Amino acid sequence: VSARATPAPETVAGRRQDSATRIRVAVIGASGYAGGELVRLLAGHPFVEIVGLVGRERDHVPLGDVHPHLDSTGLDIDSATPAADAYFLALPHGASSARVAQLADGGRLIVDLGPDFRLRDEADYPRWYGFTHPAPDLLAGAVYGLPELHRAELAALVDAPVRIVGAPGCYPTATLLALAPLAWAGLIGDLVVDAKSGVSGAGREAKADLMFDEVNESVRAYGLGGHRHVAEIEQELAACGRAAGLPGAANPGVRRVDFVPHLIPMDRGILATCHVRPSRAVDQAELDALYAAAYAGEPFVTVVSDGPGPATKHVRGSNHARVRVLHDERTERIVAIGVIDNLVKGAAGQAIQAFNLAAGLPETAGLEQLAVVP
Amino acid sequence: VSARATPAPETVAGRRQDSATRIRVAVIGASGYAGGELVRLLAGHPFVEIVGLVGRERDHVPLGDVHPHLDSTGLDIDSATPAADAYFLALPHGASSARVAQLADGGRLIVDLGPDFRLRDEADYPRWYGFTHPAPDLLAGAVYGLPELHRAELAALVDAPVRIVGAPGCYPTATLLALAPLAWAGLIGDLVVDAKSGVSGAGREAKADLMFDEVNESVRAYGLGGHRHVAEIEQELAACGRAAGLPGAANPGVRRVDFVPHLIPMDRGILATCHVRPSRAVDQAELDALYAAAYAGEPFVTVVSDGPGPATKHVRGSNHARVRVLHDERTERIVAIGVIDNLVKGAAGQAIQAFNLAAGLPETAGLEQLAVVP
Amino acid sequence: VSARATPAPETVAGRRQDSATRIRVAVIGASGYAGGELVRLLAGHPFVEIVGLVGRERDHVPLGDVHPHLDSTGLDIDSATPAADAYFLALPHGASSARVAQLADGGRLIVDLGPDFRLRDEADYPRWYGFTHPAPDLLAGAVYGLPELHRAELAALVDAPVRIVGAPGCYPTATLLALAPLAWAGLIGDLVVDAKSGVSGAGREAKADLMFDEVNESVRAYGLGGHRHVAEIEQELAACGRAAGLPGAANPGVRRVDFVPHLIPMDRGILATCHVRPSRAVDQAELDALYAAAYAGEPFVTVVSDGPGPATKHVRGSNHARVRVLHDERTERIVAIGVIDNLVKGAAGQAIQAFNLAAGLPETAGLEQLAVVP
Amino acid sequence: VSARATPAPETVAGRRQDSATRIRVAVIGASGYAGGELVRLLAGHPFVEIVGLVGRERDHVPLGDVHPHLDSTGLDIDSATPAADAYFLALPHGASSARVAQLADGGRLIVDLGPDFRLRDEADYPRWYGFTHPAPDLLAGAVYGLPELHRAELAALVDAPVRIVGAPGCYPTATLLALAPLAWAGLIGDLVVDAKSGVSGAGREAKADLMFDEVNESVRAYGLGGHRHVAEIEQELAACGRAAGLPGAANPGVRRVDFVPHLIPMDRGILATCHVRPSRAVDQAELDALYAAAYAGEPFVTVVSDGPGPATKHVRGSNHARVRVLHDERTERIVAIGVIDNLVKGAAGQAIQAFNLAAGLPETAGLEQLAVVP
Repeated sequence: VSARATPAPETVAGRRQDSATRIRVAVIGASGYAGGELVRLLAGHPFVEIVGLVGRERDHVPLGDVHPHLDSTGLDIDSATPAADAYFLALPHGASSARVAQLADGGRLIVDLGPDFRLRDEADYPRWYGFTHPAPDLLAGAVYGLPELHRAELAALVDAPVRIVGAPGCYPTATLLALAPLAWAGLIGDLVVDAKSGVSGAGREAKADLMFDEVNESVRAYGLGGHRHVAEIEQELAACGRAAGLPGAANPGVRRVDFVPHLIPMDRGILATCHVRPSRAVDQAELDALYAAAYAGEPFVTVVSDGPGPATKHVRGSNHARVRVLHDERTERIVAIGVIDNLVKGAAGQAIQAFNLAAGLPETAGLEQLAVVP
Repeated sequence: VSARATPAPETVAGRRQDSATRIRVAVIGASGYAGGELVRLLAGHPFVEIVGLVGRERDHVPLGDVHPHLDSTGLDIDSATPAADAYFLALPHGASSARVAQLADGGRLIVDLGPDFRLRDEADYPRWYGFTHPAPDLLAGAVYGLPELHRAELAALVDAPVRIVGAPGCYPTATLLALAPLAWAGLIGDLVVDAKSGVSGAGREAKADLMFDEVNESVRAYGLGGHRHVAEIEQELAACGRAAGLPGAANPGVRRVDFVPHLIPMDRGILATCHVRPSRAVDQAELDALYAAAYAGEPFVTVVSDGPGPATKHVRGSNHARVRVLHDERTERIVAIGVIDNLVKGAAGQAIQAFNLAAGLPETAGLEQLAVVP
Repeated sequence: VSARATPAPETVAGRRQDSATRIRVAVIGASGYAGGELVRLLAGHPFVEIVGLVGRERDHVPLGDVHPHLDSTGLDIDSATPAADAYFLALPHGASSARVAQLADGGRLIVDLGPDFRLRDEADYPRWYGFTHPAPDLLAGAVYGLPELHRAELAALVDAPVRIVGAPGCYPTATLLALAPLAWAGLIGDLVVDAKSGVSGAGREAKADLMFDEVNESVRAYGLGGHRHVAEIEQELAACGRAAGLPGAANPGVRRVDFVPHLIPMDRGILATCHVRPSRAVDQAELDALYAAAYAGEPFVTVVSDGPGPATKHVRGSNHARVRVLHDERTERIVAIGVIDNLVKGAAGQAIQAFNLAAGLPETAGLEQLAVVP
Repeated sequence: VSARATPAPETVAGRRQDSATRIRVAVIGASGYAGGELVRLLAGHPFVEIVGLVGRERDHVPLGDVHPHLDSTGLDIDSATPAADAYFLALPHGASSARVAQLADGGRLIVDLGPDFRLRDEADYPRWYGFTHPAPDLLAGAVYGLPELHRAELAALVDAPVRIVGAPGCYPTATLLALAPLAWAGLIGDLVVDAKSGVSGAGREAKADLMFDEVNESVRAYGLGGHRHVAEIEQELAACGRAAGLPGAANPGVRRVDFVPHLIPMDRGILATCHVRPSRAVDQAELDALYAAAYAGEPFVTVVSDGPGPATKHVRGSNHARVRVLHDERTERIVAIGVIDNLVKGAAGQAIQAFNLAAGLPETAGLEQLAVVP
């Protein structure tokens, strides 16, 4: 009988944090689902103090009026941005980039949950998101906040003059965790990503096509013709190849990914089914070894190998990802599956994980919650 | 303002059917979901009379004890097989083939909802289903009961000495309707089928992993490493190519299909997302024309082209399929999507549609129900 | 303009109807859930012809754009009200009463699915619905469209000069069918009605609190402090006592009913749990006899007596109600439960059942569909 | 054997606990839903060490095989009962009472999540549960583990020679929290409790009527004729009157409670709607004052007063209860509603809350999780 070790406070890397020096954080965009999830997790984070929640056109609104489940925090939502050491931004695309230059001033840490600092090529913004990036000079220094791929860069933000994290999208997180070991090995010859998401990924605004009776007892594809998240997926899979020292022609399948998301009648969860034609012959033993090596020691990624594929239910409410890889001898294809909770590892939890690294805190601080099942 | 025409009785093809000469049908395996659905539909069929329902180890059990929603039919389930003109079999694989030789005697019409008469090659049974087919001589004459692909052969059963229909599986139905126009045109260069199903496809037997709390608020893949339905999919897609007079090398993607099914927290519905790399350059206009031509006049297939992908909700309880095809210029791939109600067009409804053809009845008889939405 | 197949002539009761004399009907308010359900059922009704669908601010809109599952009808929605023999109105409260005087002119049959013609006392409209009834003189002649309670009055509308049916609300239908035998017997000493409804009862308009993620995985009460439907429940239970010739003091529990509805995460279905303190000692045998007698021969009401209480699932998509009554010896109370599909027996189906009676058609015409389960 | 991080010392109340003096706990019956939930919460409890998980007929089974979401704990399930300071028992009724006498020996703390130590009158066991209690002498000293009603008695167990907590049932918890302020005030003249539960309350064993397709899209009553939990409800409501010094004739409505539970298609959550006829005239202001006073300072009970009734969603995964009381002037009745997560405040969380008190720990230790919404 034993248990998973969690770093005790005394093992904190970098500058020691305690209650006397808790990091003061603010959440901008606290009214939506990602904002609420940030508060849920940050309220229990041992090394931070929430100094403000900001919502549009609201002032002194009890948080419980907007998020009843958070009323015991006693927090309010206000319209003014408070002074803080770090800002979490959960805003629509285009909204955070307009504000970050000012907020990031003086070395304040910015973790943006929107897409404005995920893409390195400023040309991708008009192309995929329809706006011209207002602060393109900040893109080069921003770090894509997927710790399993960019841990060292995130940790290097501790002492950086400009400290901006672009927290990954939900679909890219599930997809990249499923595929990174293949990309690092140069195995992705051809790629189809067929993803399934719970409804909370679509946000909290009232929309006719997200009413209960339209979504329940149904499944449908959407984003046909090119969902925006494919830009991140292609960028980061290509970066995996480069990080592994592979030539540019490796992983030809990551250049134009066929990505189709689907809406599933459930609140939370993303499952990404990645269908890969390998660029050379492989077998299950090689794949098992690749994944075991890639994720050994990762606190939030579990490689599963038996029974049915991993279920989104088993990560509900937690920052854990579950990954499975399977070689089908008959078709000579690989199926790699990743599951996450889209609001935790796919949004707020991952943002905090990246924040922890960028702030010199233990990576798992505030994220130890186990999944809530059933 | 107009409406869809339904054949009036006087337009019945073949030998005239009326109440004096209603076809006497029996359902063998009436206790499961597919069996219940057969009764629901046959009870309202204008040209048949249900003369018996057979369940294992049951006798004189009111149908309402097993299917409360059918109690107003006043029918019973019995253990003895009654004399009938036609038999619908909803039995586990391997169970119907052992009985069909006798039941089919004398020209009685057999519609088997299981897999025992779907595959033409007897070697596929030990390979995919783990049993040696007991009546391989009957396989050649059996017709795969997908009217959109085999209408003429089904109609030819009217006067055949042996009359056996192997009604298609639920996944193959959604997949084949989505892909047939591409297969007829020889366009399937490479193929991934990623399918999503409601829970009723797994049957009615109590299983721990199908309990509400295990399935609800979750999505997972299953059948990893090769789901049995892929045998049908490959057989029939190859047959499409032959039917269109294409050479054997056409549609290379149909030989080893990468097929992964997923369990969705809903009662009914299948959505098959088919990711196709075309064997030559195409555009949306060509695809639109192919699908429009393929399904013009089909009473149960609608090609949709706008908005989000077709939703399973919109066919719930009906025998309709909805199909969409999309060319993605960026990836140069085709995404073809098919949705059905797995218990109607994917099981009982399609069985009745095939039965109607094989019995010389109007194809849509008893199947006019519109979907129940929401 | 045409419609479905002529039914087998031998099933027609009453005065013969055929395509030459089909009743021309129009649906006003076809865009909502009740409107869609009316079209679903009327499109298959053997004695009617749909001559028009009316929606607000729409013209020549294909019905399939609004209700994709109905696109095979080929019908359109228009803004102009067509000439018709009968009108079904599915409009918000206050909207139909303003139009009915004109529409009803010349003996045209009106079936209003809203509340404007359900209540006999015009003072109830400002009290419960907040508007002054514009046509109070029409209230006395309107018939409450619950056939099990008002069959003769509905049938008498065939030859009436003014023909208006106020189709019952969904909660009242489930409640009244559960309780009518007790009310007729003067047994309701005290009454609590605790009701549970699927989400479609709340309509189709986009509302923040009806979004999937707000409703799913949750149950909550609403309408606290007095839901409007209680007015109908009290009116009709009192009427049951009068109809049975009971003195005014009988059924004291029906005067001020404690009615609390709850929102259940499902599309359809209402279950009304009626907790009754009987006005005198009873036992189960007496209750069984009362219910058996009350509902003998009713085509759409089934009294169930074994196992768990009736489930909403077993009436999904059908016009059937299921009722159970239970005497608890320990508490000396009665629990009476009614379940219906809120959009069929609780709305469109019941409206058609009442229409059939008021039009001299067989009561069950167009309503023979069995429930769609699972 | 280790566990989670040491908490910030300043949050610890009462006698200081640290890793050197962690309480060693074992969970007996760890395979079910309540057992899994105990592990989820105890694994993060700052003052306990899990020294063993016991399951029937299992040995050295990785916990992740049974509860995949708990695999990161690294714990195993075994068949032998380990030495421990405290035992949590999550066993079927009748199973724990047979073992407790031995386990409780030496002052070890027992928290039984089953019903075997909830009822004070041994005659209630054969009557409601069908077994003769094997250790009736232990019943008098056992404490009903609802802290809001029995906090002092639970705290007194710290130094008691026999230390047994009978943790409340899920329905009683929601009901008692909704009603206790009324019972303390002697206001319950007549009482109907209509309760709604998610499916996890029915346990994890595979049963045909709990399959997804039987439960989903449906609501039904069960336990008709007397659910076992009514025994607890009546016992504890009567105890509230006595605790408040009321005469025996006060709260006449609590003697024979009409309690009807319903199964709701959701994983978790209980909502109890309590319909009360008050024993004297009251108004909303008096009720508001009663509830505010009763629950002031309670860490896990929130009284809500606006908008729709409290929703089960808002307590999902947390130990919080939400309560609302409403006086309906028209009917002169009170509606009191309580919502909890049946597996947390209705089972594992409440057991830990009671354990904390009985072990001299801060009452909220290990239970600070906020609800997971949506």
